[in-house]
Amino acid sequence: MPLSDASRSKLTAVSTATITTVLFKRGFRNVFISGVGLINPKAPRMVGPAYTMRYIPSREDLDTLSVFEDRSHPQRKGVEECPAGAVFVIDSRRDPKAASAGGILVTRLWKRGCAGIVTDGGFRDTPDIAELPFPVYHAAPAAPTNLIRHHAVDLNVPIGCGDVPVYPGDIIVGDREGVAVIPQHLADEIAEEAFEQTVFEDFVQEQVEAGRSIFGIYPPSPEAKEEFARWRAAKGR
Amino acid sequence: MPLSDASRSKLTAVSTATITTVLFKRGFRNVFISGVGLINPKAPRMVGPAYTMRYIPSREDLDTLSVFEDRSHPQRKGVEECPAGAVFVIDSRRDPKAASAGGILVTRLWKRGCAGIVTDGGFRDTPDIAELPFPVYHAAPAAPTNLIRHHAVDLNVPIGCGDVPVYPGDIIVGDREGVAVIPQHLADEIAEEAFEQTVFEDFVQEQVEAGRSIFGIYPPSPEAKEEFARWRAAKGR
Amino acid sequence: MPLSDASRSKLTAVSTATITTVLFKRGFRNVFISGVGLINPKAPRMVGPAYTMRYIPSREDLDTLSVFEDRSHPQRKGVEECPAGAVFVIDSRRDPKAASAGGILVTRLWKRGCAGIVTDGGFRDTPDIAELPFPVYHAAPAAPTNLIRHHAVDLNVPIGCGDVPVYPGDIIVGDREGVAVIPQHLADEIAEEAFEQTVFEDFVQEQVEAGRSIFGIYPPSPEAKEEFARWRAAKGR
Amino acid sequence: MPLSDASRSKLTAVSTATITTVLFKRGFRNVFISGVGLINPKAPRMVGPAYTMRYIPSREDLDTLSVFEDRSHPQRKGVEECPAGAVFVIDSRRDPKAASAGGILVTRLWKRGCAGIVTDGGFRDTPDIAELPFPVYHAAPAAPTNLIRHHAVDLNVPIGCGDVPVYPGDIIVGDREGVAVIPQHLADEIAEEAFEQTVFEDFVQEQVEAGRSIFGIYPPSPEAKEEFARWRAAKGR
Amino acid sequence: MPLSDASRSKLTAVSTATITTVLFKRGFRNVFISGVGLINPKAPRMVGPAYTMRYIPSREDLDTLSVFEDRSHPQRKGVEECPAGAVFVIDSRRDPKAASAGGILVTRLWKRGCAGIVTDGGFRDTPDIAELPFPVYHAAPAAPTNLIRHHAVDLNVPIGCGDVPVYPGDIIVGDREGVAVIPQHLADEIAEEAFEQTVFEDFVQEQVEAGRSIFGIYPPSPEAKEEFARWRAAKGR
Amino acid sequence: MPLSDASRSKLTAVSTATITTVLFKRGFRNVFISGVGLINPKAPRMVGPAYTMRYIPSREDLDTLSVFEDRSHPQRKGVEECPAGAVFVIDSRRDPKAASAGGILVTRLWKRGCAGIVTDGGFRDTPDIAELPFPVYHAAPAAPTNLIRHHAVDLNVPIGCGDVPVYPGDIIVGDREGVAVIPQHLADEIAEEAFEQTVFEDFVQEQVEAGRSIFGIYPPSPEAKEEFARWRAAKGR
Repeated sequence: MPLSDASRSKLTAVSTATITTVLFKRGFRNVFISGVGLINPKAPRMVGPAYTMRYIPSREDLDTLSVFEDRSHPQRKGVEECPAGAVFVIDSRRDPKAASAGGILVTRLWKRGCAGIVTDGGFRDTPDIAELPFPVYHAAPAAPTNLIRHHAVDLNVPIGCGDVPVYPGDIIVGDREGVAVIPQHLADEIAEEAFEQTVFEDFVQEQVEAGRSIFGIYPPSPEAKEEFARWRAAKGR
Repeated sequence: MPLSDASRSKLTAVSTATITTVLFKRGFRNVFISGVGLINPKAPRMVGPAYTMRYIPSREDLDTLSVFEDRSHPQRKGVEECPAGAVFVIDSRRDPKAASAGGILVTRLWKRGCAGIVTDGGFRDTPDIAELPFPVYHAAPAAPTNLIRHHAVDLNVPIGCGDVPVYPGDIIVGDREGVAVIPQHLADEIAEEAFEQTVFEDFVQEQVEAGRSIFGIYPPSPEAKEEFARWRAAKGR
Repeated sequence: MPLSDASRSKLTAVSTATITTVLFKRGFRNVFISGVGLINPKAPRMVGPAYTMRYIPSREDLDTLSVFEDRSHPQRKGVEECPAGAVFVIDSRRDPKAASAGGILVTRLWKRGCAGIVTDGGFRDTPDIAELPFPVYHAAPAAPTNLIRHHAVDLNVPIGCGDVPVYPGDIIVGDREGVAVIPQHLADEIAEEAFEQTVFEDFVQEQVEAGRSIFGIYPPSPEAKEEFARWRAAKGR
Repeated sequence: MPLSDASRSKLTAVSTATITTVLFKRGFRNVFISGVGLINPKAPRMVGPAYTMRYIPSREDLDTLSVFEDRSHPQRKGVEECPAGAVFVIDSRRDPKAASAGGILVTRLWKRGCAGIVTDGGFRDTPDIAELPFPVYHAAPAAPTNLIRHHAVDLNVPIGCGDVPVYPGDIIVGDREGVAVIPQHLADEIAEEAFEQTVFEDFVQEQVEAGRSIFGIYPPSPEAKEEFARWRAAKGR
Repeated sequence: MPLSDASRSKLTAVSTATITTVLFKRGFRNVFISGVGLINPKAPRMVGPAYTMRYIPSREDLDTLSVFEDRSHPQRKGVEECPAGAVFVIDSRRDPKAASAGGILVTRLWKRGCAGIVTDGGFRDTPDIAELPFPVYHAAPAAPTNLIRHHAVDLNVPIGCGDVPVYPGDIIVGDREGVAVIPQHLADEIAEEAFEQTVFEDFVQEQVEAGRSIFGIYPPSPEAKEEFARWRAAKGR
Repeated sequence: MPLSDASRSKLTAVSTATITTVLFKRGFRNVFISGVGLINPKAPRMVGPAYTMRYIPSREDLDTLSVFEDRSHPQRKGVEECPAGAVFVIDSRRDPKAASAGGILVTRLWKRGCAGIVTDGGFRDTPDIAELPFPVYHAAPAAPTNLIRHHAVDLNVPIGCGDVPVYPGDIIVGDREGVAVIPQHLADEIAEEAFEQTVFEDFVQEQVEAGRSIFGIYPPSPEAKEEFARWRAAKGR
């Protein structure tokens, strides 16, 4: 069930804050990846299905620089196989003491048309990565190679990232606040409801900036609902 | 005992670093709220008496979206009642996994003439909040609604914020380094002494930038004290 | 064994990420100071031998403001004695609740020609420090004076900084990602190998930006090695 | 609504593990106080309504040894006013670096007929406290007096303890595993259902100890349900 | 490659401390599972190959009590399929806020002849588990059911446990100090060398208890080596 | 200034809780080593002057098993030189992932007549150490050899241990609650006052166990002071 263009478009126009509220209405409390931030000041919004990689702790005899000569090494294979439009999401066990990936691999994902990359660990070459027009989220800069702490073991299995469950195909949305995870089967309805909620909050924000009290409009009274309907019609939204 | 205009003016001109030193001379060791930073690059200095709110952990049956329909809900009531000129200080138990407040409420505080807002948790809608000319301090961005982790229970009671005691009416000062808390009854004397100390440190900074050793002026010898007196007179400070 | 100009020059041109990989080839896994970041957006690269200071926890009867009247106080003595070209590295026991140093002392180090300053705690006066063209690395802003938490006890002894061992004379390199520590006796060979590795990675980065797969060039096949040799010759590097 | 004798009796016979599962069925996920353990090897089960105390961080000028001369000091007043049968629950902001209370106060609670005491900080005089036949739960031993870190500010208000919400009157149950919190209005139905669940799990445990697979009985098939009914009848439970 | 009886016997007679040293000689630095302890005062030593289970964070719509009705649920399936003689090792992402398993499942493993169970989270029903003659290692008691925080997703894949890599078949050894992990292919040589080292350390311990200095025997001089050889012959070890 | 026999005797009879209060009266707030506990259930009280050792993080090329062949290695030298009657106190940077020392060295200290050993890291061979009639305090069991994380660098210099400053010669007191540090020059007066305070608290404890309120005796009214004087005379204390 690929993400529809309509839903992708709506999700690009809403905030992770609004998405988490809409998911909370359906009982989801743990959908915002904690402890990660955006590296790239000029990156576009990130929206796409999750393609995942799992790290376990490294072992001195297995994790040497020679492993990268094997094209089936999951980190390298994943970077070449993550579909265009997808978000590469990495379970690094919240450990930013070694890199989940570096500038060359991130550049490759960007050039391959992926939608972004997220780790609950850290990336290396972050001064260069920060210049890319590509959304990259991590916990902290991590110069050392992944081999010092991480062993890539699986591609596209369910993982935890920042204490949030991520299943392959879940819709990952990132803005300047952080990263939200939408269960795949709910993507369309969340996109729709979050979009509607955003229009309403834009109305409220405009009113509050004009000096109005939050009482009566946030949440809205029946009168405020009518007022919003008129505002919306007038704005053509 | 409201904050005098003279003291407010002086506190606007000194750093939190200098304030903490002046308080240390009187035996206060725990006056700098740890773990929080300023969101808004262009915010003015924050100076004002504390108006507080206290969160406890939320409970699934009590903390649903319908609570906001009650105008006496402390988060909403507080935002409408925090006095102009005051700083809204929130005890979020240092937990930034759900928002202490969001963009609309922060905008309302700003429009109502409050002096700033501080939480030891996080705010949501931070990309929007960062654009406001209003000082906002938190620990980390937090997209999820407060209900997921926090239950607002009290207004204007003594709290802890970032491991620092905050009593209603204490004077809260924020600069780009962070937030200091001045016990209310000491505000005038701290303002005065911090202001004087700042003039002296400006003198030392000027000397050190010109290549002088710190020995003899930081702390000052009797000769350096006289030199400072001449410098001050010449500068008209 | 002073750092040669050639090695200093090469180390100024390579990243901490590359340095950590070259050290990993020799069995070093713990050379990147964790948890610290650069304060100064416009600082130059930091390269120089370590001059160290050690803090232990402070004690109320020993650590009063009067200690600074003693010119042999290690913090003040160290700031005046750290050699030009050296990096002042401070073991603050990873505690950023009080300052390792403030704006005046950091300014003095800069004017004395030191190469930079690193603490695994925090600095005070950071809004001012951030304006200096001098590299300053710390964990978090810390307004309170060092005396509240720290007692300076030793100069130029082996320390831990951010969980990394630092011996006086080790070569400290800082870029926008963070700070790496090179054992003194390896400085020249690490500088040389990191420089060569950087040229190669610039080649790979250029290829990947042009749309090429990482397979076959990262790591390089024999053909890619030849291609790199031609590229390098053509570029005159 | 006092706790009925029947419910108190049932809650004394069930585990905190079973209580948390029965609460989970009703949507409660956060009812087990994290990070605390029982000090007293020979204490009875703890069951009783919560009587609470709230600490904020202490302040050097307010929190001196003379405060205890005031009989209205909340820590001392609370120890004398906590009702017989109640559990004294303390919000110490999860900070065990200073004592929430010591041996004399804990002894007084015991002699007054209280049901137990819980803090998410620590107690002092723990070697003596460990000898009492009175349930005492904390995070870690804490020799220093509370004044060093804590200021008692409120009695019998809603608090957080170990990240769990505790309202005055909630039913607190402690066994050797830890402490569970039951919302007051649910106490009877939770007691009843947990008691029934315990009888069933005793049946399963007996079967498994006899070598039976968990499949078919945990959870039970229709046949296993009938088998359990016969077992229960035979046992007279 | 099953563990030979001879190696199993030797590993039962050596400490995890000695095993970690023998592994360190071969370059392994990360083989001791951090943060876990033994629950059962009377359990035998634990030695056996690893059978693993992996948890990710739970999700409200997927992790309900009804999941246990499915016999293929990994937690239940794993408990019935873990081979006799094997150690069940669980990756709980170091999160002890919900149980990795409870008393009934642990009893089942014991009765099925497994060698022990380890989680880097916590178990529930720990007062009952502590009575079993079966080695159980965890980080902290955790009354709540696993569903509140954990989703069992995989059986017998490589995992991390307490920051240590564990591959299915690795030899897991537990004593009263904690749990060590031996890469499968090294089991025999580690068993042999650790056994020899233990005999030598028994000799040293006997000497030191008799009042002898550590110098000359720990590490041993040539004379001490001869003395040890005579001691060993005399003891028949 | 050696510890007098009279003071040693008094300090053996008072608790660390009482010592920390007596030090608090003189302005000392940070004298209880946090995060450590006693391993040995049957150890005597620990009282003696501090003899210190300092660890920094280890480095792969310097910290190999061969270092112990050098008799001047600080860990081995310290164990042979720590004076009889002294307490060996180790700064392990609060890191219990590798051992500060093991059973043979601890046994040697015991046989040499030392008064105890404290680390803010961990020890190895703890099941054996726990049997010794010798007080040993640490944070957690740590099977791996110190070389994996720690490099012993100094003997008998000022250190931090568990975030508390420890100077050589400070008086270290350990009971079943934990470890307190008394500045050397205050040892006699603290011993005297803590001893007096203990007699008084024994009186209060006896009264409270008999059912008396804390009001009027804790702190004591003038009448209670007279009552205590009569009690003390009657008891011959």
